[in-house]
Amino acid sequence: MLVLIAIDAMGGDFGPRVAVPAALRALNKDPCLSVLLVGDLSTIRPLLPENSPLLNRIQFRHSDISVAMGDSAKHALRHQKGSSIHLAVQAVADQEADACVSAGNTGALAVISRYLLKMYPGVSRPAICSQLPVNGGECLMLDLGANLGCDADDLYQFALMGSAMAEVMQSKVSPSVGLLNVGEEELKGTELVREAADIMATSTAIRYEGFIEGSDIFSGQVDVIVCDGISGNTALKTSEGVVRFLFQQIRQGFRNTLYGRVVSILVRPVLKSIKRSLNPERYNGAVLLGLQGVVVKSHGAAEVEGFYRSILHATHAVRSGLCERVGDKVANRGADTSL
Amino acid sequence: MLVLIAIDAMGGDFGPRVAVPAALRALNKDPCLSVLLVGDLSTIRPLLPENSPLLNRIQFRHSDISVAMGDSAKHALRHQKGSSIHLAVQAVADQEADACVSAGNTGALAVISRYLLKMYPGVSRPAICSQLPVNGGECLMLDLGANLGCDADDLYQFALMGSAMAEVMQSKVSPSVGLLNVGEEELKGTELVREAADIMATSTAIRYEGFIEGSDIFSGQVDVIVCDGISGNTALKTSEGVVRFLFQQIRQGFRNTLYGRVVSILVRPVLKSIKRSLNPERYNGAVLLGLQGVVVKSHGAAEVEGFYRSILHATHAVRSGLCERVGDKVANRGADTSL
Repeated sequence: MLVLIAIDAMGGDFGPRVAVPAALRALNKDPCLSVLLVGDLSTIRPLLPENSPLLNRIQFRHSDISVAMGDSAKHALRHQKGSSIHLAVQAVADQEADACVSAGNTGALAVISRYLLKMYPGVSRPAICSQLPVNGGECLMLDLGANLGCDADDLYQFALMGSAMAEVMQSKVSPSVGLLNVGEEELKGTELVREAADIMATSTAIRYEGFIEGSDIFSGQVDVIVCDGISGNTALKTSEGVVRFLFQQIRQGFRNTLYGRVVSILVRPVLKSIKRSLNPERYNGAVLLGLQGVVVKSHGAAEVEGFYRSILHATHAVRSGLCERVGDKVANRGADTSL
Repeated sequence: MLVLIAIDAMGGDFGPRVAVPAALRALNKDPCLSVLLVGDLSTIRPLLPENSPLLNRIQFRHSDISVAMGDSAKHALRHQKGSSIHLAVQAVADQEADACVSAGNTGALAVISRYLLKMYPGVSRPAICSQLPVNGGECLMLDLGANLGCDADDLYQFALMGSAMAEVMQSKVSPSVGLLNVGEEELKGTELVREAADIMATSTAIRYEGFIEGSDIFSGQVDVIVCDGISGNTALKTSEGVVRFLFQQIRQGFRNTLYGRVVSILVRPVLKSIKRSLNPERYNGAVLLGLQGVVVKSHGAAEVEGFYRSILHATHAVRSGLCERVGDKVANRGADTSL
């Protein structure tokens, strides 16, 4: 299936320096892929190889406005209509492109996508959903920060959307859902979380397995982890920090003794391969679920490998019919719950 | 300075089997320490050595009521007045003991302590504060789950109390304070967090350094990390899970190849020492700050090493005058802030 991905080449910490080589790599990998590069063509064009056959599968759209990381989403929507994010999402709204990928301002991407693509009926707000490496495989977690406040029904929508994504993109049959909660006994969760748990427990549209604590996110107990944006963002960022800290400690630990320094030479290839398997670049590319179109957010700090994975992820989302499945799942929730 | 610690010997996953050996170890370590063991004496006494001189520094108080992990805090307070938690905290309230340590139900411990010991004026609620190993040293983080909802002024109180603890227990001069926040640009925090940041920025009673993200908790950027109980609990539990997952992956990584299996034998001592240095047992013992008395919560799953650390931590808190310093710091906030 031919797929055209609109790429905001100006976002993230590295802009076209990462987005363009990543696009070329994706084109090389997937012969049925085309891309629309959106951004400042005077910086994009010099990054392309001359006379490459890949050029036949690249389209261009010029924009000299980039939304900065610190810009407010509303400002970006109202006053930067010609921005590279805006034009990339617009291409999806106009059915010119099948999906878009951006490493730019998350808030702006969410607000612009919501405005241009609209939500599926029954979805109040987009949720950021990402894959995580866990014991024995992968799980999906949402929301990772698109929503700072949400109610019990929003959490249930996240559960439906996450389940749909696990079904079509990871081919999981009846994926299990866990609701992130704090662990202290007396404090077993806010009213919000308990209310959401009640809704999920009565739903036949998802396979709800109960609460899970932060300590079990990586245990592989469930396929989909549902949480509000603050908790999800906190958990995700904390995990990144812990992994970095731990590898620092391991490096330091080997340096501390002569024995360690000698052994570290032998160990390096093994640790490298472990680090590679956990590399966040491998799991880069979060989907904004609930939108009537595929929008993938690449990490702002992602390098070529990470951005490339985001493009492939978007392509896979298009081919697997992710959005339609999410829309169906949410539309059919009424038949399945008593609420 | 002679210190007497009341120990709830019935709490946690292991009860007296952990609490009693831990108490003996602490008595061995610190000749100026005495303990009051509270709990079912028919199970406690057989765990003690006969004719040991340590027995001179052990007092006993019988209780045959234990608060279960699943009991509600209010139920424990109202209907289990003779419980081992209750009697241990009561000993502090009656100035019979200098501090108490429990591995029992956190909610019950917090509610009973608040009822019997009272808060310092100006503190709305106790906050759970624990040390964490971070790059280059240790930091303090609070609240870790005593409060599910809190307002901006509560967060400021946490900042004052955490600073006081870093000063007296870690001998840090003018400790720096960071406020945990989500990282997305547009979503730079809830109104709550922004309001708290405004208060902290104008305070001269603390050295406020700004927001920090979850990914920087372990970077050692600040001495005190302030957050609401849900975010703190989520971050802490997630960290535990990530560490466990990572060591699993490392073990697995070494097993995957013949080379790895051979090298792993050489590496074992180094990895073991790293694991030991990060062992949560080493950092076990969270203080409930804001109470007019020292109350230390040991992790429910802590083993002898961990519980022993909690007892030493409580002893250190008493000797360093932690509670009084916390009380002073909060009392003097008025002089230092314009609010």
